[in-house]
Amino acid sequence: MNYQMIAYTIGRILFTEGALMLLPLVTALLYRESPVSFLIPMLLLVALGALLGGRKPKQTALYARDGLAVVALAWIVMSLFGALPFVISGDIPQFVDAFFETVSGFTTTGATILTEVESLQNGILFWRSFTHWIGGMGVLVFVMAILPMSGGQGMHLMRAEAPGPSVGKLVSRMRDTAKILYGIYFAMTIVLILLLLAGGMSLFDSCIHAFGTAGTGGFSNRNLSVGAYNNAYFDVVLSIFMLLFGINFNLYYFLLIKRFRDVLHSEELWAYLGIVAVSVLAITVNIHHMYDSVLTSMRHALFQVSTIITTTGYATTDFNLWPSFSKAILVLLMFIGGCAGSTGGGMKVSRWVILTKASYSDMRQMLHPNAVSVVRFEGKPVPEKTLRGVHLYLAVYALVFSVSVLLLSLEGFDMTTTFTAVTACFNNIGPGLEMVGPMGNFSAFSIWAKLLLSFDMLAGRLELFPMLLLFAPSIWRRGHKGRPRIIP
Amino acid sequence: MNYQMIAYTIGRILFTEGALMLLPLVTALLYRESPVSFLIPMLLLVALGALLGGRKPKQTALYARDGLAVVALAWIVMSLFGALPFVISGDIPQFVDAFFETVSGFTTTGATILTEVESLQNGILFWRSFTHWIGGMGVLVFVMAILPMSGGQGMHLMRAEAPGPSVGKLVSRMRDTAKILYGIYFAMTIVLILLLLAGGMSLFDSCIHAFGTAGTGGFSNRNLSVGAYNNAYFDVVLSIFMLLFGINFNLYYFLLIKRFRDVLHSEELWAYLGIVAVSVLAITVNIHHMYDSVLTSMRHALFQVSTIITTTGYATTDFNLWPSFSKAILVLLMFIGGCAGSTGGGMKVSRWVILTKASYSDMRQMLHPNAVSVVRFEGKPVPEKTLRGVHLYLAVYALVFSVSVLLLSLEGFDMTTTFTAVTACFNNIGPGLEMVGPMGNFSAFSIWAKLLLSFDMLAGRLELFPMLLLFAPSIWRRGHKGRPRIIP
Repeated sequence: MNYQMIAYTIGRILFTEGALMLLPLVTALLYRESPVSFLIPMLLLVALGALLGGRKPKQTALYARDGLAVVALAWIVMSLFGALPFVISGDIPQFVDAFFETVSGFTTTGATILTEVESLQNGILFWRSFTHWIGGMGVLVFVMAILPMSGGQGMHLMRAEAPGPSVGKLVSRMRDTAKILYGIYFAMTIVLILLLLAGGMSLFDSCIHAFGTAGTGGFSNRNLSVGAYNNAYFDVVLSIFMLLFGINFNLYYFLLIKRFRDVLHSEELWAYLGIVAVSVLAITVNIHHMYDSVLTSMRHALFQVSTIITTTGYATTDFNLWPSFSKAILVLLMFIGGCAGSTGGGMKVSRWVILTKASYSDMRQMLHPNAVSVVRFEGKPVPEKTLRGVHLYLAVYALVFSVSVLLLSLEGFDMTTTFTAVTACFNNIGPGLEMVGPMGNFSAFSIWAKLLLSFDMLAGRLELFPMLLLFAPSIWRRGHKGRPRIIP
Repeated sequence: MNYQMIAYTIGRILFTEGALMLLPLVTALLYRESPVSFLIPMLLLVALGALLGGRKPKQTALYARDGLAVVALAWIVMSLFGALPFVISGDIPQFVDAFFETVSGFTTTGATILTEVESLQNGILFWRSFTHWIGGMGVLVFVMAILPMSGGQGMHLMRAEAPGPSVGKLVSRMRDTAKILYGIYFAMTIVLILLLLAGGMSLFDSCIHAFGTAGTGGFSNRNLSVGAYNNAYFDVVLSIFMLLFGINFNLYYFLLIKRFRDVLHSEELWAYLGIVAVSVLAITVNIHHMYDSVLTSMRHALFQVSTIITTTGYATTDFNLWPSFSKAILVLLMFIGGCAGSTGGGMKVSRWVILTKASYSDMRQMLHPNAVSVVRFEGKPVPEKTLRGVHLYLAVYALVFSVSVLLLSLEGFDMTTTFTAVTACFNNIGPGLEMVGPMGNFSAFSIWAKLLLSFDMLAGRLELFPMLLLFAPSIWRRGHKGRPRIIP
């Protein structure tokens, strides 16, 4: 492991985090709240960032495994420091609670240990939701976009942080790719804020909900979440934008450079929209007797389907009270998740499409042993390595999920709470069912359970391997066997 | 598809089923119950069997896909006829209920729609449990063992029916392999009956519980299952024999021919025993406050762990009332299942061992991209095809499981009931939690739900593909492309 280079990279990330705290600081000042909650962490972050990231090491090569380690360590360290404002302000006095809340923020999960949020200071609420926006597109991608990073380390970092079975570069230089992605992300967030303002939402609330939507996070500054407004316009606007942020950002770039064919022929996009449409229809029919009109049912169905499949986690209604069929649909959507390369979590639509197609193809082979069948996805044959990777992902996912449920069951809560708490954290959704349902929270869990769920949130957001490989002794070994594999 | 050959094979199976009904018929006569419930189905089966299986077709080649179709069709047809005694006797008047009960019997699931069983006629109770014994080792294996079948069709049939990721022949002729397996199965059943008799159980009850244990089925003739005896000796004997029947039968053959090394070095065996030991210990600690002594806790823990991991489904106590941690362990064991080549159901220990090792190896590859790592199982490298097959199995398993939960949730029962009902049927266990817990039953489900769960039981027992491929139009097409692939 190239320790110097890892310290250097993490230093730059901490520096960036310190700089990003300027926004909640300004918010706190505007609302005449004490700026100390942010000033102390900012000083720490900038000092530590300057110390670690000040001088570039001579040996800048980063190996694939270094990339995994950097990403995992960066997210943990960022969350540790990101928790400080909550503790210093006194809004979340326990550090583990604050850490859980920050991990939930950065990983865009949206699970909360707070029993109510409306009494929190505005600066703190801003920071809480801003972590969603930062974590949504990826912190390293952000650092790459704004700070120059020579050499070919970018690809390893991006690969470790970006969601989905394979990562493509949009343009030849990683840094330009990162800039394009963040540009689109930024522009879409601004459009959403404007639309919410146009509907009469305050600027503060608009920012909070735009951050939570863009990052597909789900923190709200209202106890009843988006349901507090009880406003069809907000519900529909947020539903549409949640769905938009759950789509692969590469497609938006293709739209910008007028490659419309690539967008129209995206299998993942159509699968995603198809799943959404079928789910909304099925739930609308299933819950129509609970609301006064079909349109209201459909509005709630659309909102909950969007919030769950994109793993955002906002709520307009308590779907814990819906019939079993609707709940089962939502639980299954929790395991599907958004598209690869979006801000959504979960297993990703593309993985399921590839798994389904590969299963179909293998079963066909059983009937026709002599026929040659190739699995194609997005118009191209799926490389054997990607296929193996998707299968590996499912297996490791199932193993980590099982161990988590087993450990969490030690808390002694009912099976549905235990199962959906892991589901909601591991897939970065936020609310589950029963005690952790949309109107519930995670405050009743012990410190150990909160740390376990924090691990699950990080493992889910970073797609398992960076977090798991931290446990491999060989990742901590200095130096390397073999040649460095740098992708320019 | 070679329709003549399929009809011929199914004819022989029906004939065999008719002959096997002699035993419950004799039981009914001994207890002075009406023999009509068995005479009518026997006449039908023998007549139909003679009609279809009387003359051997000229073209006897069976292709791989024919093997799959034969097995699936045979199990469905057998269950349809096997349901008749229940209906004719009036003990289960509804045909769909009787079909569910028979499928549950043959697939060795042990899920019941009966709210109480002690009022049933003895002949019917005998048949109900005897289906477990027949289904445990496989019906086609049985037919192969007793009726001569020339040509190389045996391997395809056995491969389609036998559980586990790969099937090995013990001796060069399939028929001899089948005979050896059934010989061991028969001898172990007799030993168990003798042990139960020695403990003071009646001959009738001993047979019933030996059938349920040998097939890892779980039907009892007592409403409280094995708990009705409240006898430590029976609990321990049955626990040990359930575990024994959950072990790959090839190992018993190795014992017989003194290949002790092969037994001692069986990775699957050690993994299986290790999982059992750890689970028993963990549950004993978790439930020790509920019983008056540690030994009683351990006895219940051992019994429930054995009954669940081997997918038998007997109960000595209502584990639905145990703490969440113990319940979570049992639910996870439901997904593990017995060893390959045993009478146990579920995903099988060997599949999980291979999945875990392959995942570990692939993750190692991430850290050391230039290192060569081969997955080894039972001392041999796992062929790429087997590995792919195991991954395929997990993916298809997850897909079928999800669709089943979704459809069953239309019944409107709580999430735990819905989830564990599918878990218990798909893994051929029997009891789940809540409404379908060890002291509950499946009577409240609708006809559609019972058919869905019957499909799941069959799909679970036949390891997915035979049942799924029935839906492929091409399997019904006459003739073949390519050469027949017969394994001699």
